[in-house]
Amino acid sequence: MIDRLCVIGVGLIGGSVARAARTLGLCREIVGIDRDMENLEKAKNLGVIDIAASAMDEGIHGADFIVIATPVGVIGPILSRLKSNWSFSAVYTDVGSTKHNVKRALEDTFGTIPANFIPGHPIAGSETGGVESSIADLFGGKRIILTPCGDFDPMCFDRVKTFWQDLGGIVSTMDVHHHDLVLAATSHLPHVVAYALTDMLGRKDEKDEILKYAAGGFKDFTRIASSDPAMWLDICLANRNKIIDLIDQMVAELNGIRGLLEKDSTEELREIFFRAKNARQRYLDQLER
Amino acid sequence: MIDRLCVIGVGLIGGSVARAARTLGLCREIVGIDRDMENLEKAKNLGVIDIAASAMDEGIHGADFIVIATPVGVIGPILSRLKSNWSFSAVYTDVGSTKHNVKRALEDTFGTIPANFIPGHPIAGSETGGVESSIADLFGGKRIILTPCGDFDPMCFDRVKTFWQDLGGIVSTMDVHHHDLVLAATSHLPHVVAYALTDMLGRKDEKDEILKYAAGGFKDFTRIASSDPAMWLDICLANRNKIIDLIDQMVAELNGIRGLLEKDSTEELREIFFRAKNARQRYLDQLER
Repeated sequence: MIDRLCVIGVGLIGGSVARAARTLGLCREIVGIDRDMENLEKAKNLGVIDIAASAMDEGIHGADFIVIATPVGVIGPILSRLKSNWSFSAVYTDVGSTKHNVKRALEDTFGTIPANFIPGHPIAGSETGGVESSIADLFGGKRIILTPCGDFDPMCFDRVKTFWQDLGGIVSTMDVHHHDLVLAATSHLPHVVAYALTDMLGRKDEKDEILKYAAGGFKDFTRIASSDPAMWLDICLANRNKIIDLIDQMVAELNGIRGLLEKDSTEELREIFFRAKNARQRYLDQLER
Repeated sequence: MIDRLCVIGVGLIGGSVARAARTLGLCREIVGIDRDMENLEKAKNLGVIDIAASAMDEGIHGADFIVIATPVGVIGPILSRLKSNWSFSAVYTDVGSTKHNVKRALEDTFGTIPANFIPGHPIAGSETGGVESSIADLFGGKRIILTPCGDFDPMCFDRVKTFWQDLGGIVSTMDVHHHDLVLAATSHLPHVVAYALTDMLGRKDEKDEILKYAAGGFKDFTRIASSDPAMWLDICLANRNKIIDLIDQMVAELNGIRGLLEKDSTEELREIFFRAKNARQRYLDQLER
């Protein structure tokens, strides 16, 4: 059992971690740290956290399990502030959507990666963020990827793994590079494409009403374009090399279809459309398992 | 009141038209025509149609309101077969997702566009097709675009307009070119992009499991990639010039974001992401009105 759970960044993910830990009785008390005092008060009033701390030193004191749930862009400054009060008996983890930047920030801050820091990423989220959207069962049945690196402490790894399993997550382990590649493909690229298409059509819409004729399919297709732009800017910059490669591949893919349309290559187009439908079916089948 | 409603092509849309017309008491009897006898029998057993006809002449006889709900690619052959039994007292309409090909097929078949043919397009559909998915309230609150062309008969136009309004649709009128442009942007391009991305990730997934780590956003984003590939191949070929233009614009858009990522142009990226989020919000607000 955790004595004092400390959540740094009490938004959708941090808030849901806190709610789940409380609901499941995994900890005695929960302290929330956030630079936004108004948000912290809201979290306290909602019963998500017990103690609201705006100062890092005060909040972290006595915590034995620390979850960093801030936007990925601020992991460096957060680690710097944690360093002076680093506890070797506590376990640290994070929930960032990109992992090589966390690894690099750990190396830059500590020289070598602390054995009691186990980077992680719960693949759960929503286009509606904020602590008011947090729910205790956000992680039930969701994939959680841990990317332990350096000379990590297996006991700490087990504690983080067990924590997420207790929250209902399905835990996998990956190396940092593979994690960032997989997420660039399945999450970051789709977000970039959705933002690109929605912005392009939005500009057309301003000149010439078109969006009012968009069907239901459009609503789902563009749902991720309603995601928090600031958060996604952070993620895209943190993983930009892999995203750039995938944008190039996506452009080649679109140009390929363009060429087939121009040449009236019915069979090749049919093959692409069928292969896509089958790929999505494989994905849906996996979800149901 | 319609005496004999004839639906040519009894799938999701044709079946839903029939169900709605029956539920609302808009016609005395419904005859379905379909090249697939098994499907027709299913439609009859489901109570969607009263009479199943595999021969066009037999099915069309005595019909005073004819809805062509076949895939867009076969509109030419359908019109040729209708020509020999053309009724000048009946009203004809269609539900095709592209309209210039319907206009051209009418001109090719009849020399001039028959005054009693009013082309139309209900913007309603689903990735699950077939008569078994048809429902009576598919068109409630949905946009219906009519593209009357040539010297159309205003009485016929009114009958088609009233028919769709009775079915709960919100009817707009557009010229053919504008319809095809609006739909290329809001529907055809998103489908092409979803097929392209899903096929690309599907091929990666075969080498290296990635789709099992895809989050909920991916499911919605790719939903339209589960649409009927044969139907969409037809639509893409029928509207390919406009789709090719939009693919070029989308590629430019993606290359623009790629360049901004490479140059670390935070402000411009933020602007795109925010503009996209706002555009989607405008679209959502319109839906609620």
